[in-house]
Amino acid sequence: MSTKPDVAFIGLGAMGFGMATHLVKQGYNVTGFDVWAPTLARFAEAGGKTATTPAAAVEGKPVCVCMVATAQQAQAVLVDGDLAPAAAALPQNAVILLCSTVPCGYVQTLAATLADPNGPVRRPDLLLVDCPVSGGATRAADGTLSIMAGATPEALNQPLARTVLGELADPAKLYLVDGGIGAGSNTKMVHQVLAANQILSGPEAMGFAARLGLPADASTLDALLKSPGFSWMFGHRGPRMIAGFQPLASAITIIVKDTAIITSEARRAGFATPMTSVVENVLYTAVNRGYGGEDDSALLKLYTDGLPAASSQSVDTAKSLKLVVDLLKGIHLASAAESLAFAHFVGLDLDLILDLCVNAAGGSTMLSTHGPAIIALLRGEKPPVAEGADSLATIYENLATAVDTAQQIKAPVFLGAQALTLLRLTMNHAKAAAQTAPAAAVVKVFA
Amino acid sequence: MSTKPDVAFIGLGAMGFGMATHLVKQGYNVTGFDVWAPTLARFAEAGGKTATTPAAAVEGKPVCVCMVATAQQAQAVLVDGDLAPAAAALPQNAVILLCSTVPCGYVQTLAATLADPNGPVRRPDLLLVDCPVSGGATRAADGTLSIMAGATPEALNQPLARTVLGELADPAKLYLVDGGIGAGSNTKMVHQVLAANQILSGPEAMGFAARLGLPADASTLDALLKSPGFSWMFGHRGPRMIAGFQPLASAITIIVKDTAIITSEARRAGFATPMTSVVENVLYTAVNRGYGGEDDSALLKLYTDGLPAASSQSVDTAKSLKLVVDLLKGIHLASAAESLAFAHFVGLDLDLILDLCVNAAGGSTMLSTHGPAIIALLRGEKPPVAEGADSLATIYENLATAVDTAQQIKAPVFLGAQALTLLRLTMNHAKAAAQTAPAAAVVKVFA
Repeated sequence: MSTKPDVAFIGLGAMGFGMATHLVKQGYNVTGFDVWAPTLARFAEAGGKTATTPAAAVEGKPVCVCMVATAQQAQAVLVDGDLAPAAAALPQNAVILLCSTVPCGYVQTLAATLADPNGPVRRPDLLLVDCPVSGGATRAADGTLSIMAGATPEALNQPLARTVLGELADPAKLYLVDGGIGAGSNTKMVHQVLAANQILSGPEAMGFAARLGLPADASTLDALLKSPGFSWMFGHRGPRMIAGFQPLASAITIIVKDTAIITSEARRAGFATPMTSVVENVLYTAVNRGYGGEDDSALLKLYTDGLPAASSQSVDTAKSLKLVVDLLKGIHLASAAESLAFAHFVGLDLDLILDLCVNAAGGSTMLSTHGPAIIALLRGEKPPVAEGADSLATIYENLATAVDTAQQIKAPVFLGAQALTLLRLTMNHAKAAAQTAPAAAVVKVFA
Repeated sequence: MSTKPDVAFIGLGAMGFGMATHLVKQGYNVTGFDVWAPTLARFAEAGGKTATTPAAAVEGKPVCVCMVATAQQAQAVLVDGDLAPAAAALPQNAVILLCSTVPCGYVQTLAATLADPNGPVRRPDLLLVDCPVSGGATRAADGTLSIMAGATPEALNQPLARTVLGELADPAKLYLVDGGIGAGSNTKMVHQVLAANQILSGPEAMGFAARLGLPADASTLDALLKSPGFSWMFGHRGPRMIAGFQPLASAITIIVKDTAIITSEARRAGFATPMTSVVENVLYTAVNRGYGGEDDSALLKLYTDGLPAASSQSVDTAKSLKLVVDLLKGIHLASAAESLAFAHFVGLDLDLILDLCVNAAGGSTMLSTHGPAIIALLRGEKPPVAEGADSLATIYENLATAVDTAQQIKAPVFLGAQALTLLRLTMNHAKAAAQTAPAAAVVKVFA
């Protein structure tokens, strides 16, 4: 066996196609499978081999990457689908790298199913790695993804597994997560709390800006991205918001799938996700209005109903921008707290999570600024003083002014209002201490 | 002066017209004013006198009822509008019954303005009663409204004021509220927490039912109204939901006005209203979609986007109905807690509030069942055991199942998800005691 193992790659969607062709370019012998025939043909053109069933794809391959969209699809291609599934057909001691975003509960069940001596697969020899990814299609194709991998030490340290993970990830962004199978998925899940909130906070901010009379154009976007309201997602989606929601890079249905994982796993674990639950319900209204297949930048449409295309209002630009920035700051603080509190609740390493999220699609200025103090509070330690950071009371007052203004113009600010609620509940529970509490104290509402 | 004083009546909208004509039928000499001329003509046909300015209407009248829609309108017709305003034109020691739903802060400012020796009116002799009403247009026309009146003892006990309030109210539903000017408006405000939540919970429930494949018809409505998910609002709006949102009885813009009072007064007072804040943002989406002028039963449309008119699903009716009832139970419990906690926060008499709300448009089975225990917890007393009532954990589990199911079919359940969040936060703060806590314990999240 060479140092570049033969690889089976199941699931050649936007992310999977990039990852699989990257492996081809790096000299790997890759056999792809997908149910969508045109994609298979395109993969062959890119130098890959193809197969017509999952079982045929994995035959003789010591490593199988699975990058399908959902747990249901993973179950079908690996265990019990109509097309001959992969797991039973893998060679002895093969590695399965499950890169799909799935619930922790699913991947744990899958591990048990694979090994079950009375189950449909009966392969305790297989090494399963729970390793969802983040970073988008461009980084997938460049082999510079963030990857969060959990498994048994035996699987995590298997040389072929490490080789392939190393090809797909940016070396600085391959996170080996303690906690065994499920810990990778939990890590992705808490990252997606940030991703989901920030996929919606951008449209909410741009919609609010437009209702305030600011132009929904590059000048407004640029000002917001240079502010403490910055998020990676807004930097990524913002240009598409002002370009007719083109190109279609990530459909609304994708983040809908992820919010469902977050809130259902939260219910299973007994954790409350006030911010993500609001995101989810707003997303369902988008799906029901027929927007599901559109790029998620099109969520802006939910916030601009009935708004004239061009405003003739005279606007105090600096004052209006401040309101929008204050809205974003409140939302990003609350979602940072929700994400890290959830990570703590499911037992993840908070320093690793913060490092990962700051450097992946979940990053925001508020997370970078307040994350260390949030983590300290979750651990019962004295929080570090965040350099130049506003207090809880200041963020509350500024956000309240933004929400007040939104009320006057009947601008929906679902996330801003929910963040305000969480800040207020925190302050009321803290009573006298509320005036001096650090912004990070909002995390206490979750625990 | 006879025992039936001459009355000026300003504001002849859906409620005001009924109230004013009721006074005419009872033999009062009533002079009406409204900016909408056709209404004035109709009032003259009904036996009233009319005037073309507020000042002309009140000339020589010892009692002036003001039933305009907003604080802005009240300010204009009483103090400083373009048409000669009423206050300065009233005779000495006249009574103003301000029946509009306005913020507590506004009516307190109005009282100060009327009396201010350097102000625009300079009439410390006037007696202002803060007396918003509830009950809908039918009860307005029957003289059987619920009225919640606050004022100085001098104003509250003025015989003419009491006479006119007695004509407009059901004798059992005239509530004299301690706390002076503002206490009446605060009472209405906490009542409207229930009204607003239940105006939306009906459509949310019917929309969820429809997505589950239940018919959105009288059979489903009837089953829900006979369940513990009953609310007065659903009984009132439900028939209109299944009759094409006709007749137009109360426009969406009316409840929008009231939610704005609730959330802005909550911000001013430092109280969190998680349920009503969600209601408000959903209402803004309705307004921005152009539904503002429609009957509020048309909020159902927000929940049925993309849903085929007739379902061909085979449905387990009993199981599906239980999910919808559990959704309503969770929402009504959380909104009962929010309403009573807010009442406590602003210093109202909780027994009076509960009695009023149970018997007015805010009534629901959950409020009747759990209200006494919620009040006991707010007072730091041991809650009474509510006969046959589910525990907090049971309501949580049932609601979680409903929200889980909604997730599977992508049904938006904004209020159900928010109620679940509040129940979960309560349970997590209560830790070990959560399993045995009464449902009423959800109120602790607010305090």
